[in-house]
Amino acid sequence: MARIVCFGEILLRLSAPGRELLLQTPTLQTHVGGAEANVAVSLARFGHDARMVSFLPDNTLGESARGELRRHGVETTFVEHAAGRMGLYFLTPGAGQRAADIIYDRTASAFANIPATDWRAALNGADWLHISGITPALNATTTDATLGAMQAARAAGVKVSFDSNFRAKLWEARGDDPRPTLNALFADADLLFAEARDIGLATGERAANADEAAAIAFKRYPNLQRIASTTRTIVSADHNDLGGVMHTRTTATRSPARAVIGIVDRIGGGDAFAAGLLHGLVTGSTEQHALDFAVAAAALKHYIPGDFNLATVADVDFFLSNSGSDVRR
Amino acid sequence: MARIVCFGEILLRLSAPGRELLLQTPTLQTHVGGAEANVAVSLARFGHDARMVSFLPDNTLGESARGELRRHGVETTFVEHAAGRMGLYFLTPGAGQRAADIIYDRTASAFANIPATDWRAALNGADWLHISGITPALNATTTDATLGAMQAARAAGVKVSFDSNFRAKLWEARGDDPRPTLNALFADADLLFAEARDIGLATGERAANADEAAAIAFKRYPNLQRIASTTRTIVSADHNDLGGVMHTRTTATRSPARAVIGIVDRIGGGDAFAAGLLHGLVTGSTEQHALDFAVAAAALKHYIPGDFNLATVADVDFFLSNSGSDVRR
Amino acid sequence: MARIVCFGEILLRLSAPGRELLLQTPTLQTHVGGAEANVAVSLARFGHDARMVSFLPDNTLGESARGELRRHGVETTFVEHAAGRMGLYFLTPGAGQRAADIIYDRTASAFANIPATDWRAALNGADWLHISGITPALNATTTDATLGAMQAARAAGVKVSFDSNFRAKLWEARGDDPRPTLNALFADADLLFAEARDIGLATGERAANADEAAAIAFKRYPNLQRIASTTRTIVSADHNDLGGVMHTRTTATRSPARAVIGIVDRIGGGDAFAAGLLHGLVTGSTEQHALDFAVAAAALKHYIPGDFNLATVADVDFFLSNSGSDVRR
Amino acid sequence: MARIVCFGEILLRLSAPGRELLLQTPTLQTHVGGAEANVAVSLARFGHDARMVSFLPDNTLGESARGELRRHGVETTFVEHAAGRMGLYFLTPGAGQRAADIIYDRTASAFANIPATDWRAALNGADWLHISGITPALNATTTDATLGAMQAARAAGVKVSFDSNFRAKLWEARGDDPRPTLNALFADADLLFAEARDIGLATGERAANADEAAAIAFKRYPNLQRIASTTRTIVSADHNDLGGVMHTRTTATRSPARAVIGIVDRIGGGDAFAAGLLHGLVTGSTEQHALDFAVAAAALKHYIPGDFNLATVADVDFFLSNSGSDVRR
Amino acid sequence: MARIVCFGEILLRLSAPGRELLLQTPTLQTHVGGAEANVAVSLARFGHDARMVSFLPDNTLGESARGELRRHGVETTFVEHAAGRMGLYFLTPGAGQRAADIIYDRTASAFANIPATDWRAALNGADWLHISGITPALNATTTDATLGAMQAARAAGVKVSFDSNFRAKLWEARGDDPRPTLNALFADADLLFAEARDIGLATGERAANADEAAAIAFKRYPNLQRIASTTRTIVSADHNDLGGVMHTRTTATRSPARAVIGIVDRIGGGDAFAAGLLHGLVTGSTEQHALDFAVAAAALKHYIPGDFNLATVADVDFFLSNSGSDVRR
Amino acid sequence: MARIVCFGEILLRLSAPGRELLLQTPTLQTHVGGAEANVAVSLARFGHDARMVSFLPDNTLGESARGELRRHGVETTFVEHAAGRMGLYFLTPGAGQRAADIIYDRTASAFANIPATDWRAALNGADWLHISGITPALNATTTDATLGAMQAARAAGVKVSFDSNFRAKLWEARGDDPRPTLNALFADADLLFAEARDIGLATGERAANADEAAAIAFKRYPNLQRIASTTRTIVSADHNDLGGVMHTRTTATRSPARAVIGIVDRIGGGDAFAAGLLHGLVTGSTEQHALDFAVAAAALKHYIPGDFNLATVADVDFFLSNSGSDVRR
Ligand SMILES: [Ca+2]
Ligand SMILES: [Ca+2]
Ligand SMILES: [Ca+2]
Ligand SMILES: [Ca+2]
Ligand SMILES: [Ca+2]
Ligand SMILES: [Ca+2]
Ligand SMILES: [Ca+2]
Ligand SMILES: [Ca+2]
Ligand SMILES: [Ca+2]
Ligand SMILES: [Ca+2]
Ligand SMILES: [Ca+2]
Ligand SMILES: [Ca+2]
Ligand code: NI
Ligand code: NI
Ligand code: NI
Ligand code: NI
Ligand code: NI
Ligand code: NI
Ligand code: NI
Ligand code: NI
Ligand code: NI
Ligand code: NI
Ligand code: NI
Ligand code: NI
Ligand code: NI
Ligand code: NI
Ligand code: NI
Ligand code: NI
Ligand code: NI
Ligand code: NI
Repeated sequence: MARIVCFGEILLRLSAPGRELLLQTPTLQTHVGGAEANVAVSLARFGHDARMVSFLPDNTLGESARGELRRHGVETTFVEHAAGRMGLYFLTPGAGQRAADIIYDRTASAFANIPATDWRAALNGADWLHISGITPALNATTTDATLGAMQAARAAGVKVSFDSNFRAKLWEARGDDPRPTLNALFADADLLFAEARDIGLATGERAANADEAAAIAFKRYPNLQRIASTTRTIVSADHNDLGGVMHTRTTATRSPARAVIGIVDRIGGGDAFAAGLLHGLVTGSTEQHALDFAVAAAALKHYIPGDFNLATVADVDFFLSNSGSDVRR
Repeated sequence: MARIVCFGEILLRLSAPGRELLLQTPTLQTHVGGAEANVAVSLARFGHDARMVSFLPDNTLGESARGELRRHGVETTFVEHAAGRMGLYFLTPGAGQRAADIIYDRTASAFANIPATDWRAALNGADWLHISGITPALNATTTDATLGAMQAARAAGVKVSFDSNFRAKLWEARGDDPRPTLNALFADADLLFAEARDIGLATGERAANADEAAAIAFKRYPNLQRIASTTRTIVSADHNDLGGVMHTRTTATRSPARAVIGIVDRIGGGDAFAAGLLHGLVTGSTEQHALDFAVAAAALKHYIPGDFNLATVADVDFFLSNSGSDVRR
Repeated sequence: MARIVCFGEILLRLSAPGRELLLQTPTLQTHVGGAEANVAVSLARFGHDARMVSFLPDNTLGESARGELRRHGVETTFVEHAAGRMGLYFLTPGAGQRAADIIYDRTASAFANIPATDWRAALNGADWLHISGITPALNATTTDATLGAMQAARAAGVKVSFDSNFRAKLWEARGDDPRPTLNALFADADLLFAEARDIGLATGERAANADEAAAIAFKRYPNLQRIASTTRTIVSADHNDLGGVMHTRTTATRSPARAVIGIVDRIGGGDAFAAGLLHGLVTGSTEQHALDFAVAAAALKHYIPGDFNLATVADVDFFLSNSGSDVRR
Repeated sequence: MARIVCFGEILLRLSAPGRELLLQTPTLQTHVGGAEANVAVSLARFGHDARMVSFLPDNTLGESARGELRRHGVETTFVEHAAGRMGLYFLTPGAGQRAADIIYDRTASAFANIPATDWRAALNGADWLHISGITPALNATTTDATLGAMQAARAAGVKVSFDSNFRAKLWEARGDDPRPTLNALFADADLLFAEARDIGLATGERAANADEAAAIAFKRYPNLQRIASTTRTIVSADHNDLGGVMHTRTTATRSPARAVIGIVDRIGGGDAFAAGLLHGLVTGSTEQHALDFAVAAAALKHYIPGDFNLATVADVDFFLSNSGSDVRR
Repeated sequence: MARIVCFGEILLRLSAPGRELLLQTPTLQTHVGGAEANVAVSLARFGHDARMVSFLPDNTLGESARGELRRHGVETTFVEHAAGRMGLYFLTPGAGQRAADIIYDRTASAFANIPATDWRAALNGADWLHISGITPALNATTTDATLGAMQAARAAGVKVSFDSNFRAKLWEARGDDPRPTLNALFADADLLFAEARDIGLATGERAANADEAAAIAFKRYPNLQRIASTTRTIVSADHNDLGGVMHTRTTATRSPARAVIGIVDRIGGGDAFAAGLLHGLVTGSTEQHALDFAVAAAALKHYIPGDFNLATVADVDFFLSNSGSDVRR
Repeated sequence: MARIVCFGEILLRLSAPGRELLLQTPTLQTHVGGAEANVAVSLARFGHDARMVSFLPDNTLGESARGELRRHGVETTFVEHAAGRMGLYFLTPGAGQRAADIIYDRTASAFANIPATDWRAALNGADWLHISGITPALNATTTDATLGAMQAARAAGVKVSFDSNFRAKLWEARGDDPRPTLNALFADADLLFAEARDIGLATGERAANADEAAAIAFKRYPNLQRIASTTRTIVSADHNDLGGVMHTRTTATRSPARAVIGIVDRIGGGDAFAAGLLHGLVTGSTEQHALDFAVAAAALKHYIPGDFNLATVADVDFFLSNSGSDVRR
């Protein structure tokens, strides 16, 4: 059991029931999410000591979001109150060939103006710090907070996992060039979740594929030890083929594509992959098993409602090994 | 923005929730429907001035049906009260390979004995009148009302759209030969939604395919300017391939088949096609774009619960252009 | 049938189902509300030509709110798009002796920075303009917009109805003294919904009761013709006794208290009263009947879920006259 | 265990969920009901051999209604298929002080044109035949069928229970004077559920109270052995005080009023009373216990959703004896 | 119409709604099931006289389970009360590629200590007795009761249908060798539902395929007249190909595989097959039609929520013959 | 903030939705409960460090129950896995005057055969140990475990709170005389929740009222410092008047009765009282305020669905002080 600290915004999702359009009928289902919270819950469900660092409003919405993390085993001592709203997003789930649709509603949230965090305390005993690229994209304060968290981790000997999660719309809204920030963030990471496109954005060097991109990144970022990403072929909105690729400075590992058909919930698959890979790393799996486990976790997440991958290690292992049983009894 | 007047019965659908059989559990979900109302709602959602002409009972059921049309932007000034019941239908939605099943319950409805309508007022400012073959099939009064409406439209310079929607059971129940009526109806149409089979029924001339059928119809009906229909290949109850074909007196246009898999609601696809095509015609699209849009609208409807195609023009355009994004953010 | 124009923010309510606490289970029920929208819907249900003037975001949330107003018969031509969020509020409904609880979430809403409105067009043909004290309390822009709307109405010969709806928290948050604004607003009203406390706040003169308050107000505000309010005795959270009082410059009318027990939804009762009274005024009721109808409408609203009083005139009349029938057949 | 044969229409109820208005949200809850079916279910739940005689359409709606009766133990061998619709009624449940509201939708139902019934077979082994005044009120055919059933019962030595259940609207719609029919029906009853008003309607003789009415009825109808009714004081729509009164030719029995507060479902209380009294008679209770049991059954029904009193004898006995336990463990 | 007596445990299923994980949200859906009860319900829905012999606790849970059987037309006179709990099972329904998961909770159930049954009465008038291998696997008492039931049937000239339904976990928990019991059970069967694996378990002789297994079984068990089983190819958890094979002493019949895609409920497919085949046998179908009907019944069951195949003969025939209609009107 | 350790069985409640009878419709709502878990959750919601000691099965049911405790802030490190079932209870919630009804289903639960607990570790840092009389009533093993826990607490200087919660049925089922056990349990308590009846059962000395009972108990049990109980007058099943009484060796405190009308959930009121009183004691309230707070907490619980009192200290204070606001904004 390792201790992983996740830092990012916790969001409340409001979604249409079943396969309805948003507000077609006057009911919304709620889930708690947010890229880093999703990683924290999955790691806690895998049996790790997952700690969340975040800020929530001091009202029933914030309290309820904290309760959901706790329910699934995440430690929330460092989830603090701050002024501002609860960050929301409204989801029209996809159905068949109809794509899912999201309205973000995180303006003026409690997380957006991050107060100072006592990182020494928050990182106490930690093996890893996990952050995603959404947090530094929000505004200058969150950019600084992200860089500060990473530096505190490096100083404390805590390894840094960074999921690039590039959101063009957020950077456009700020009117800022994301490159200097991405470059600084990648420079502090030990483990980077990124595709070739993301590495191109941070470095300004175009790579034709994951192998080239890894070469560029390892050359430019001396701290970086590992790069991983899913590989996704979209056959249709309802049918994806999902595999993975991982590079270290000396190895390249690939996990063959699995068919993901009859999707239940498309949100949080990438976070499930990140958590699956961190699980493999902290439990000393082989490169191949770590990546296969991460891809299976990501695939299984597509069949679980909500943002969280609630699968246990046993569930992922059964999914990996399943040779035809249609009911587990 | 054009004004389209739709004339027909408004029905209340009562259906089993989820993928249950009808009354397997003691809950019914309600939707408002009816072929012409479906067209009106879709046109209103596309931004047009859609007016419904119909008759409803003076009770909460009728008032609620009117409210649903209004909610989606349909003008209901010419939806009047009449003696009689609310027309109902009970739906067991299909699931997987199990076909959907309908029990119609429209006996003695308020619409069945149509009082006189002031068509001069109802058609005021209209570009198109849309009617389907269900209305004239109900009884002699509704046959006369349909023909009267069409003649009023022709007299007022309003173009007539007629969706043949042949229902053998209704005609059998009347014990009447539908041909003279169908023939008279087709003769008054500018735009006809019909397959080769329907044109055969009206004319008594068998056609081997859509091209031959169009030639027959254009020859026999001098007012007719355009014939369109979907082309549907039923791979299984859960998987259809859906395309379209459209003829003018000088052109033949085809839209290639799209896979429609993982269907959510099979009702109203043809009405969505009709509305999509009318949208293309009144906005001056090319033949090809008008037909592609109509086919895409029909396909997208299969992923929206209820009888109505609630998609906007932007939704259909996204569906047409979607090149792999699995979530719209 | 009169035309009444209502101006104010439209809100989306998100509430816990049944008698649960907010987010105790992961489902929210939605309703559309807002003090002035509530008045508009009730007047439309009473058969009047109710027009809403407001601003909504250009997304599914805004479109859905507009659709609900339209569903219930409100004209929404002057509900325009504006930049900003959808205004929300989260409700924990009361249950038994447990009080209801509201979290407002209207920061940065589309309504909060009201663009210019073409009041000449919006008030065209109107008999009354109805506004409540929530709108001018939001910020300086909305204060100005409210006063501008009232002045446009006076200039156009449209009577002004103002519901004081004083919200101390909103004024405290602005750090402004509400008195000059309230005074200006009261000065432009023909009909004022206010209790003695509200009149004290606007005028700085304390009144011991409704009679004294009316005397003060009529003296100070020469445009003012009528003051009305409910009188509410709170026996317990679940049992209120609800009556009404109304003053003109020459008459005082009282409606005796009705027991309101077993409340279903506590929100919107005051708006139902305002709409009931406006109905009485525009239909030429006697003073007593207008007030009795308004009190009955307010009481009946407590038994209808959501913010809107969906009762018809027939429903309120039945409620007023009901002498023991336990089922209407 | 006695055998009681119940003859009447089986209806499908469609009602708004919770305390909503009908179709306020797009969901309906279904229950099976009908005055005589309600009596049959209650008697079956009390352990008796209850047989239903009725006609249903040959579709899923009819089959489902039959299934609900069977589920609760009613024998349905004599529920036959007939041409026509499923009889429906739409219910807006009451809430607090707001009265419940019913829209009947039984036009052209399978029951309305009753084919001939083999009463000799249907009454085989029966102790009682139970009928209500709704059936003979529908039309001339059902009037004849009702009288025929009663005569068949008298001929076969089966006692007749008749619940007058007078529905003025049904008789008005027929344009017939109900008196001759009521008079003939009362003449064939052994047990009559009727208030003084009903006896006045049948006989043309006004009675000031139940005692006088009983005297009039016993004099005029020599077959009649017993008259019973609930006594209901309506304090408010949500609070009734419910007692009972029963006369034989030699005795008068009264059951004191019980407070019925916080009502869950107002439909079927009278039928629960009838079944409770029949239970008392066939089990040889004292007059007082039979009437107290019937009143308790009627009161308890108000706290059970749906038309049926699903309480067992043990439940009614607990309700009668309950001296303060708030939970049965 | 034949009389078939089914003997086995009736279970209450508690399952997560929609495609959620068990207790992800605080709601459970209930269904009644149990292998033999499933066969009884399907036969009753097919119009046969199906009688259940079982034991239930004397509480609301037991009464409700009995009511569900009755609702669907099963005769429950021989479902008796016994001491013990209601047998339960908790189901996480599968979704997409995620397998379903079951937690059995039948410890100390009312059925587990079967009291003596009056088999002479229970089998009165019966054509067939149907039992599955779950009952004798529970404990020594149920083993004896199963053998006793079969012997009583043979003595009374009632044919015996036995579905092997081997559950390794139950036998492991007992620590017993299942072979002698299986051997004795197979020896008493006229009709055996078994795959080659099951016949190997009972006889100790390995067979390479169904043909060899049939030869072995017919040689060893002189009473045995017929062996049948589904053939299932699991393409993925969501897509099975389902066919059937049936042997008599002189014939071998095969039904080609049907694609079963988009599964709604995986439980009870085998029981639907057994009921379908019994239907064919008692109605004198050809071998081929009986087997095709049984396979179609099993396939159709996958699209009906719950353990029961609620399809009628007409539904199965429509499913067999369906040549492309996507809606039955 | 104090640390309170609670020891007892955690149960899963399965209840009918709304005001339905159990399994009237096929849906169950789930809640987690158990007398001591209820106390732990309420104390955690009041901000205390509440630790649960218990045993759960190693499956999804057990994991989900643990998650619910964690969600509401209870520390579950000492909730261990044990062989056996999940303890269940089925609830028919009361409605109006109809009493609630419970079926316990805790046979062979994981908790029933308590393995040894490391009480030194479990009580580390604790201020109080809380236990109720249900645990020792289950069987001889749980009796011993309860006494062992209490002795470990006394040895470690942890105060003992004991809620007598006498359940006659459990003792009858064991066939044991409860007196010696009760006597031993009372002897180890510092704080005793008991009525005069309970003290009579433990001591064999009858007391006429709470004052006499306190005198008897303080004399016999030298460790005992405080006795408290609610006082409940049952006006009807739906209307209780709820007060409290508390004795120390030198003082007697009474809290006047509050009307509890329109009850939402009757379960867990006594546990809410116990938690409220413990809150008062550990925060150093006056005797009167501690008792008033406890009574208010118990009353407020009646308006919160589920077994847990989810109210915060602020909620209880608002409830105590509420002087007429019908909505908290
Ligand atoms: Ca969007
Ligand atoms: Ca989802
Ligand atoms: Ca059909
Ligand atoms: Ca549907
Ligand atoms: Ca609040
Ligand atoms: Ca509400
Ligand atoms: Ca009515
Ligand atoms: Ca009801
Ligand atoms: Ca399992
Ligand atoms: Ca299922
Ligand atoms: Ca009980
Ligand atoms: Ca409850
Ligand atoms: Ni809709
Ligand atoms: Ni969990
Ligand atoms: Ni969900
Ligand atoms: Ni069922
Ligand atoms: Ni809409
Ligand atoms: Ni729908
Ligand atoms: Ni909870
Ligand atoms: Ni409406
Ligand atoms: Ni609502
Ligand atoms: Ni509404
Ligand atoms: Ni039942
Ligand atoms: Ni119900
Ligand atoms: Ni969750
Ligand atoms: Ni059925
Ligand atoms: Ni189901
Ligand atoms: Ni029922
Ligand atoms: Ni919580
Ligand atoms: Ni609950």
